[in-house]
Amino acid sequence: MSWTLEDARACDAADPLADWRSHFLLPEGIIYLDGNSLGALPAATPGVLARVTETEWGRHLISSWNRHDWIGASQRVGARIAPLIGAEADEVIVADSVSVNLTKLIAAALALRPGRGVILSEPGNFPTDLYMVQGLERMGLCSLRLAPVEDFAQALDGDVAAVLLSQVHYKSAAVHDMAALTAAAHAHGALTIWDLSHAVGAMPVALNPTGADFAVGCGYKYLNGGPGAPAFAFAARRHHAGLEQSICGWMGHAAPFAFDDAYAPAPGMKRLLAGTPPILSLAALEVGVRLIGDIGVSALHAKSMALSQCLIDDVSATCADFGIALASPPEAGARGSHVALRHPEAYPICQALIAAGVVGDFRAPDILRFGIAPAYVSFEDIWTAARRLEAVLRHETWRAPEFAARQTVT
Amino acid sequence: MSWTLEDARACDAADPLADWRSHFLLPEGIIYLDGNSLGALPAATPGVLARVTETEWGRHLISSWNRHDWIGASQRVGARIAPLIGAEADEVIVADSVSVNLTKLIAAALALRPGRGVILSEPGNFPTDLYMVQGLERMGLCSLRLAPVEDFAQALDGDVAAVLLSQVHYKSAAVHDMAALTAAAHAHGALTIWDLSHAVGAMPVALNPTGADFAVGCGYKYLNGGPGAPAFAFAARRHHAGLEQSICGWMGHAAPFAFDDAYAPAPGMKRLLAGTPPILSLAALEVGVRLIGDIGVSALHAKSMALSQCLIDDVSATCADFGIALASPPEAGARGSHVALRHPEAYPICQALIAAGVVGDFRAPDILRFGIAPAYVSFEDIWTAARRLEAVLRHETWRAPEFAARQTVT
Repeated sequence: MSWTLEDARACDAADPLADWRSHFLLPEGIIYLDGNSLGALPAATPGVLARVTETEWGRHLISSWNRHDWIGASQRVGARIAPLIGAEADEVIVADSVSVNLTKLIAAALALRPGRGVILSEPGNFPTDLYMVQGLERMGLCSLRLAPVEDFAQALDGDVAAVLLSQVHYKSAAVHDMAALTAAAHAHGALTIWDLSHAVGAMPVALNPTGADFAVGCGYKYLNGGPGAPAFAFAARRHHAGLEQSICGWMGHAAPFAFDDAYAPAPGMKRLLAGTPPILSLAALEVGVRLIGDIGVSALHAKSMALSQCLIDDVSATCADFGIALASPPEAGARGSHVALRHPEAYPICQALIAAGVVGDFRAPDILRFGIAPAYVSFEDIWTAARRLEAVLRHETWRAPEFAARQTVT
Repeated sequence: MSWTLEDARACDAADPLADWRSHFLLPEGIIYLDGNSLGALPAATPGVLARVTETEWGRHLISSWNRHDWIGASQRVGARIAPLIGAEADEVIVADSVSVNLTKLIAAALALRPGRGVILSEPGNFPTDLYMVQGLERMGLCSLRLAPVEDFAQALDGDVAAVLLSQVHYKSAAVHDMAALTAAAHAHGALTIWDLSHAVGAMPVALNPTGADFAVGCGYKYLNGGPGAPAFAFAARRHHAGLEQSICGWMGHAAPFAFDDAYAPAPGMKRLLAGTPPILSLAALEVGVRLIGDIGVSALHAKSMALSQCLIDDVSATCADFGIALASPPEAGARGSHVALRHPEAYPICQALIAAGVVGDFRAPDILRFGIAPAYVSFEDIWTAARRLEAVLRHETWRAPEFAARQTVT
């Protein structure tokens, strides 16, 4: 693809979402293509955090649980996430981390399918998803079965309690067919648990239209909730009455302030709460979720597909000679909102690009990921990033020794 | 006890910790005696949160995991908590909530005691402690046995995997003898799990000197970490090599960024991590923990005992005629840092006191709790609170209809 800076600027001028970029505080001189790992800071967040900290915590202290509805925050923010993922307000709650919510929902699925002990997933799914099953496996509660989704017709049998998959793959960005896989699971009497971490906020998700049973998702990627923001959990309303899980804390009790010795679950999703929710982190998440809801996931998805296609077309045309290969599906509809490129020297290339002001990330062993957060990434960003990638590859600046040492990056 | 406002002020003038009150932002006109539920806001916290949000998240974005050591925050803050509870730096980690950490450590204790399936606790322990056992019980992994600690000699047998108790009772403030109960548990081959939520930050805790095995504790009470602050977990170093738990997320993996399909636990306490930690809430917690460490728990405990005794003596002398009875142990050494009073109309009395500018809290069915956070509560606060309580009781202002309706308060 031969497009110019002027072409990119023309795309930005025509972009109906362009003005939303000003709702984020982006650092000068950086092109940030890692919003799939940590979303950018919404401009409103510092003020909200200052208010929650200084007025609500500092001045109103314990009374804020009622006065500022801290006690309802988990359900309130969950209700705001619901329309982004094709769910009803009472089907989503914010709680804990993706990992902890997974263990709750895997246990819930096992309880709903007595006599079945297999959780079916695919190799290479996001590790925490697989580890959570392995944790329950070590306690003798289930066993993990891994098979490529192409082989699910064979892998799905009467032992499978639930299918556990990511809607968008964290590395390749490949999108699974939620409707078809949910139907296949149901045809064998199994439930589905979807990890929406790399989908929510960047593309529409259709939990209820596809008949999905359970889901979890991340608050700190495309929802821009801040580092380690609380996660969310979804359960279809038809499962609420029979929803059993193992991490039953006082905040999920039917009457937490009765301080009974015996656990009695709260109605609906509230029983998925365990301990006291982290209010400061929740307040930041609420800002991000509102912002994404205001922009709208359909418009975000359209822009994401357009930006991603520009990056893929540009890199395919300009960088193919340097050993770069597309590791994401080529069709826009089959991808989430990031683009994965493969190169044997992906690690130092990533570091050299960061030094050149383009922040993507590396995923072992050979993947360069570029997150295309459509709420704040522009077409000019994509054009410039492609030019810098081309320069890093053409001039082999990635061979400089300072780019070789590996550091921990999340 | 007949003491005057001048006596109280003289106590404040002689108080070596008096100046630390200025390190907290306390609201004007309120006497805050609920720091055992939600600790006050340290003066340094808003600035730290603004820096973490605007500079670290907003400007440095994903690079902050290394650049600002977000990745090490769980261990770093855990190491700061360690000296407050008689532990070594590598024996404590900050993670999740008290509830979630309890379920991890109960599972770990069960794994260390194969063939034993009973968790022994006492009736009326903080509900989430009991609920967490019941959650594992529902999955067939253990059973909960409840007995008053006086009957533990009978209740402790070869089926007990672990004894689960609170160091300080959330309602009565009664302190358990950690050394004696740990020795009793060990004599029967059982482990101990201590909930330090109402102890940490207000009194010295002696985990290693008493041979305790496991502990959890709360960040938002006497550690002043903010509403829903992350909690911590302790495991004695001798258990680290064999520490197995069920909620094994990617942050607890030996090599989280290798993204292996198979879980392999990180060495030591790090394996207790599950998902990505909530950095904003962790940053606030770190401020509170540093502050308490700087003041020193021995000095805090001495002041707490002095303040509590003044309150008890005053109320005993001035309010006994109005049906108030002490519900905490009368001896200072047998109490934690709050004072519980019993009255059949505790709920409206609590509300009337709040309206009079003294914030304590109510615990069903008949308990008024006054948290004596020694870092920022003064002797004059105690004297004034006692006068207002006396007035509420003497003039029966609590009978006003607006104080009758119950609200949710945490």
